[in-house]
Amino acid sequence: MADLTISESEHRERTRTVLERADANGYDGLVLFGSINIHYVSGMYHLPTERPVALGITDERVEAVVPRLEQEHASRDEFIIDEVTTYFDYPQGEPMEAVADMCARLGIADGSIAVDVDGSPARNGYTGPALSSVVAADVGVEEYITELRETKSDHEIELIREASVWANLGHRLLQERIKPGRRPIEVRAEVEAEAVKTMLDTLGNRYEMRSWANPMQCLFTTGDVTARPHSMDQTTRIEHGDNIVTIVKPNVGGYTTELERTMFVGEASDEQQTYFEIMKESQEIAIDAIGPGVEYAAIEEAVVDYYEEQGVAEFTQHHAGHNIGMQGHERPFLDVDSNGEIRPGELFTVEPGFYVPDLGGFRHSDTVLVTDDGTETLTYYPRDIESLIV
Amino acid sequence: MADLTISESEHRERTRTVLERADANGYDGLVLFGSINIHYVSGMYHLPTERPVALGITDERVEAVVPRLEQEHASRDEFIIDEVTTYFDYPQGEPMEAVADMCARLGIADGSIAVDVDGSPARNGYTGPALSSVVAADVGVEEYITELRETKSDHEIELIREASVWANLGHRLLQERIKPGRRPIEVRAEVEAEAVKTMLDTLGNRYEMRSWANPMQCLFTTGDVTARPHSMDQTTRIEHGDNIVTIVKPNVGGYTTELERTMFVGEASDEQQTYFEIMKESQEIAIDAIGPGVEYAAIEEAVVDYYEEQGVAEFTQHHAGHNIGMQGHERPFLDVDSNGEIRPGELFTVEPGFYVPDLGGFRHSDTVLVTDDGTETLTYYPRDIESLIV
Repeated sequence: MADLTISESEHRERTRTVLERADANGYDGLVLFGSINIHYVSGMYHLPTERPVALGITDERVEAVVPRLEQEHASRDEFIIDEVTTYFDYPQGEPMEAVADMCARLGIADGSIAVDVDGSPARNGYTGPALSSVVAADVGVEEYITELRETKSDHEIELIREASVWANLGHRLLQERIKPGRRPIEVRAEVEAEAVKTMLDTLGNRYEMRSWANPMQCLFTTGDVTARPHSMDQTTRIEHGDNIVTIVKPNVGGYTTELERTMFVGEASDEQQTYFEIMKESQEIAIDAIGPGVEYAAIEEAVVDYYEEQGVAEFTQHHAGHNIGMQGHERPFLDVDSNGEIRPGELFTVEPGFYVPDLGGFRHSDTVLVTDDGTETLTYYPRDIESLIV
Repeated sequence: MADLTISESEHRERTRTVLERADANGYDGLVLFGSINIHYVSGMYHLPTERPVALGITDERVEAVVPRLEQEHASRDEFIIDEVTTYFDYPQGEPMEAVADMCARLGIADGSIAVDVDGSPARNGYTGPALSSVVAADVGVEEYITELRETKSDHEIELIREASVWANLGHRLLQERIKPGRRPIEVRAEVEAEAVKTMLDTLGNRYEMRSWANPMQCLFTTGDVTARPHSMDQTTRIEHGDNIVTIVKPNVGGYTTELERTMFVGEASDEQQTYFEIMKESQEIAIDAIGPGVEYAAIEEAVVDYYEEQGVAEFTQHHAGHNIGMQGHERPFLDVDSNGEIRPGELFTVEPGFYVPDLGGFRHSDTVLVTDDGTETLTYYPRDIESLIV
């Protein structure tokens, strides 16, 4: 089975690619503050707080500036960081001065630096200087890295494939535990406890946590709450006849997948069945439409055409899907205003859906890999209504 | 018992105070993009994604721009928002144009606008225009709101007090479940499941979730992992003789507390006992030093003096604590470089600690309220070593 950690050589290749882009735009080097950006190019993950963490990159060297409490971690051999410099804490320690010193050591302090953000972003009460007050720097490299992250390598795809396997277990456990009278948050917490234990017992010591969050997210909402797809309400209790909409997102090696299902408690009314079948068909239309060379916009267009024909277009609240990888939502989007064509190596959540007021939401989501000649759907939980009556 | 939601009148007062500060600095109105800032002044919480959410404020009116999927939620009566405007999704829908239109309606598009960030921040693949490309605006109001949030109202204190009660339950369950051979993440997930069910069964329908995260966080690390205080490693198994360092943070009404303990598995060696007692004494020194009118810096100074005397200063990795409220870490910090004096209504985590290589971390954290004439410690789990041998 694949290694569950992206290799040092892959991180070096990512760094080289980003540097080439910066060089072509006349920059001498890079400074990154975003935790995802730092993780992506160097392998070094961390908990972002008010204490700035910065990565400096030239074609000769990679350095990091970290608070004292990240020193041993940032110095691990498998991260492609040649030198770690530490300040004690914030506000003491003058972190931004330490970043300026790093730029001087890298020979880019008087040159031309591309940065992701004018760090450090206001967060958790950081109100110290921005990077631009200590060195001259142009914001722009966020764009290079975001673009690079749009298509995934073979190893990244392996990790998302592995996460999709565990999504299936998480979803099965959810379905077994959903009962009228229970609160979604209680079921979720129980299922996450069982699912994470099983995943770790199976994957063993190769599994490495990369955030403080539970490595399995298995949440759902119930009843008319499901008509608000980003509702936080996981406390309204499950009732007979409810719509359920789930969101299952395990994380493996820093990468996530997405598996979502519409289910019904006890039975589905004629109205629920009708809407369900329209939603299910719309997802099939969207998956069938995806392929290399197809315009991103065409996917949502195909869904909207079908929804208009079926008379449910007024109930939609969002586009047809988004890229997925280190973050749950990534660019590009399956959206009528996304420019460009789908490429092999992209992974999309395909999740057209609609939301009927006072009844509930209708949405499945599967994670779909774009291959050289079509697609492969990585998540495989049953999609038919008979399998989804709880 | 207190209402678990900050009142409409308190949100109106917060808005008025921030507007007064803006007005005194020559601004006609405000635009906010930060999810915490929007929650703080209007009561409206949301899941931040690539889809921008903006709040516009003048002394006449409060408006919001939200994606379609937040429309019903943002329109709830209890949020102090007079009008909600919706764009369909991002990238379609041109969210930043909708924000410019809102500014025009509010009569501030040609005036002087204070904003928290030059929204929308790059996040989840948002690469549309910044606010500054559609209206003239000065970044600065983040500072006003951060300052306002430093001292808490009576109601905010009530919510943090209530969260501290549940922290005690979460910690007791953790202590009961910690056993050699188990992984911290497994114990954590089980405890969170039981603790959140009990908290919700007790608080009833008054409890409202304000994020997708589990309302109880009960995590810990074990062994020499505890020497890296921000390590993500919750998979290394518990062994006899280990140091354990916990982090318990329930959320009530959008506010959190912090309860952390150093524990020992089976028994504590002479070395562990010696270090423990130094740590425990340092926390008492810090709590005793806190009070209205005392300099923030004096607290860490008192701890450092004691640690130097005891010969453990070289093992420290961070300052003595930080403010807490809607975020787990807030300004001001108990740090030798923090300027100013402690005020009644501030709440600090008091958590001086140190980290002995190859042995582990030594840190308790309690949440301490500053009163008119001293302090009140809101968290009350036992602090003595006899109570903390698992």
